[in-house]
Amino acid sequence: MICEIISVGTELLLGNIINTNAQYLSQKISELGFDVYYHSVVGDNMERLIEQIKLSRSRADIIITTGGLGPTDDDITKSGLCSALGIDLVLHKESLEKINSYFSKTGKEMPDINIRQAYIPSGGKIIENNNGSAPGVIYEDKKNIFILLPGPPGEMKPMFDKNVFPYLKDKSNSIIESKTLKVVGIGESSLQVMLQDLLDNQTNPTIALYAKVGEVHVRVTAKTDKKSEADYIINKMIERIKDILGDNIYGYDDDTLEGTINKLLKKNKKSIAIAESCTGGLVSDRLTNISGASDSYINGIVSYNNEAKIKILRVKEDTINKHGAVSKETAAEMAAGVKDISKTDIGLSITGIAGPDGGTAEKPIGLCYIGLAFKNDVYTYEFYFNGNRIKIKSNASTKALDILRRFLINLP
Amino acid sequence: MICEIISVGTELLLGNIINTNAQYLSQKISELGFDVYYHSVVGDNMERLIEQIKLSRSRADIIITTGGLGPTDDDITKSGLCSALGIDLVLHKESLEKINSYFSKTGKEMPDINIRQAYIPSGGKIIENNNGSAPGVIYEDKKNIFILLPGPPGEMKPMFDKNVFPYLKDKSNSIIESKTLKVVGIGESSLQVMLQDLLDNQTNPTIALYAKVGEVHVRVTAKTDKKSEADYIINKMIERIKDILGDNIYGYDDDTLEGTINKLLKKNKKSIAIAESCTGGLVSDRLTNISGASDSYINGIVSYNNEAKIKILRVKEDTINKHGAVSKETAAEMAAGVKDISKTDIGLSITGIAGPDGGTAEKPIGLCYIGLAFKNDVYTYEFYFNGNRIKIKSNASTKALDILRRFLINLP
Repeated sequence: MICEIISVGTELLLGNIINTNAQYLSQKISELGFDVYYHSVVGDNMERLIEQIKLSRSRADIIITTGGLGPTDDDITKSGLCSALGIDLVLHKESLEKINSYFSKTGKEMPDINIRQAYIPSGGKIIENNNGSAPGVIYEDKKNIFILLPGPPGEMKPMFDKNVFPYLKDKSNSIIESKTLKVVGIGESSLQVMLQDLLDNQTNPTIALYAKVGEVHVRVTAKTDKKSEADYIINKMIERIKDILGDNIYGYDDDTLEGTINKLLKKNKKSIAIAESCTGGLVSDRLTNISGASDSYINGIVSYNNEAKIKILRVKEDTINKHGAVSKETAAEMAAGVKDISKTDIGLSITGIAGPDGGTAEKPIGLCYIGLAFKNDVYTYEFYFNGNRIKIKSNASTKALDILRRFLINLP
Repeated sequence: MICEIISVGTELLLGNIINTNAQYLSQKISELGFDVYYHSVVGDNMERLIEQIKLSRSRADIIITTGGLGPTDDDITKSGLCSALGIDLVLHKESLEKINSYFSKTGKEMPDINIRQAYIPSGGKIIENNNGSAPGVIYEDKKNIFILLPGPPGEMKPMFDKNVFPYLKDKSNSIIESKTLKVVGIGESSLQVMLQDLLDNQTNPTIALYAKVGEVHVRVTAKTDKKSEADYIINKMIERIKDILGDNIYGYDDDTLEGTINKLLKKNKKSIAIAESCTGGLVSDRLTNISGASDSYINGIVSYNNEAKIKILRVKEDTINKHGAVSKETAAEMAAGVKDISKTDIGLSITGIAGPDGGTAEKPIGLCYIGLAFKNDVYTYEFYFNGNRIKIKSNASTKALDILRRFLINLP
């Protein structure tokens, strides 16, 4: 089957936003074993949208649109499809109720213009939106399947994954299965070198590396006509990769580094408290993104100035005066201090220079110390991170979480 | 003039890479005052590329392609253009010498296949590539201008900026200027209703609304032939919008909510400490993303369990027992507590239920209390947020920051 992606939105044509949706959908469609021959972007212009839909339907089987499902006059995807196909827009009462309740939950009244979001092409099926007010639509006619998705990636992606992917999978003849290994602690180029032999000789399954923020994903994909066979060849390849990468693999598929740590803390019945300086709360934020985090995450301190480090975390004034707030000695006392005041099993700390100011020749921007306190021991680590303030915060938080993960795997 | 961008490359259709080139070119073309009506992505397939070029030339004046100028069999953009227009590919001797010297500079011999890169459409002009071996091409016929650029952004962008932008600027009569107002605290639909009159009657400048996570952006764009006139009509419209939206506007263009707050704290010489429960450190993380945050941000406490609230923040045990950890009473004591222990001017607190567990009929998932302590007063606020755990955390953090911003604007 041939797929085509139409992204609707003048903001794409003005370059205000980047078309992440087209990339995401392309990856998923490729996983399904379908071909994508064209992406198109068209603005919020009825005439050109209709032209584009007519063109796309003449050369593809499945047409996926993103954007233009909002409540405003600019949002024309549904009416554009109706005009192109000569069908009507009709009110879908259940959707109207859902949109109403979406607003009333937040104590607001639904603005009248949101009624537009409850109109769908006659004969179409609604795709639920759990992250916004615009429902998606699937419309099938004799020639094509049209799938209308919202533009915000935070709504589009979960909607596609939950409802559209399984729907399209039913229409695919060949089985494409894939499993993603998630790797932290080694960069993409080193990973490439470590896996060179496997990468050079790949046929089925194929292996692809994807560099992500602070981690790398290795995707193993098999194309067969039986699920059992696909699973077999994927698992065989994964065993070979595991032999090479070992503990650098923190999880699979939907696993997150934070989620893996949450599981390890629960499995080992350990509680944790975090003391952060340069990362400013990011480590705590990431750990508490996991539901059920409160079973092991107890407390976090963002001690941004020295007084907070001394008064709350009980770092010795003398230590800061002698070695500085960014030093392995301060990191050690921060970790021990937060563990003690929070009465947890583990204390994890980070102190560093996120920039753009505050760097010196001796202690440059990007220098970070991480401390881990457990029982009567404190371990400290020194790292340099590249990039701007946001990137340094992000990489430092990942490194601290990875140190914690490796510690929990090999608990003394 | 109407422009169209064709990105050539199967790796885009597979989702292996994201189309940053189309965004970059769109921004630049918009600056030049030209319109972009379509982006297209087509794979390394001769038949489909020729179809695309024929279609694009029928509906646009200027066609810019990226990609497909490399030395391998996959690189078909130049021959595709020649086939579509019925012209010949001819050897450009100077380019051959340049490509040769590009290789010899790195101590390598030019591989034979790179000779292909020295062939250009007959009558075309070469655009120098200082960052790679593939030269670009400008080809003009009676109807269109074709501009062929390399795919790697590190080669495409400098080539466009240095040679193509000035070339196109000579062809432009008008100037396009725009300014973006950043709005927080009202949703896209309500904003549309508030601005309905202006939106209905827009001509020049135009007004567009963009929903972002937790905020909405209003972009005002003017098209004129003099910069001073563009500035004048934009500023006049912005004054009208400001009259309607008032303090709901937190900034312009590159401003962020966190950055605005940082400026307000400095301007008012106020220091702040944050006590978070359900947002898990996200408010602190966001505030400390701003360089120079340490001048006013002192300390953050992520008090995830009751003991941390009681021991560190000095929330009364009785308050938690009587009203619950998620209550306006607890939020108030958290805000006052974190202010006192951190010796700051302001204490800001959040406590709520981020889900997916922990909701009850009385206190459902998404319920949040925000507290703000200043001098001897404590203000509390109640909100309900929709969505999953991550979205609730995000929206609650934005709301807390917005409450702080509005408080700082109208400081008692």
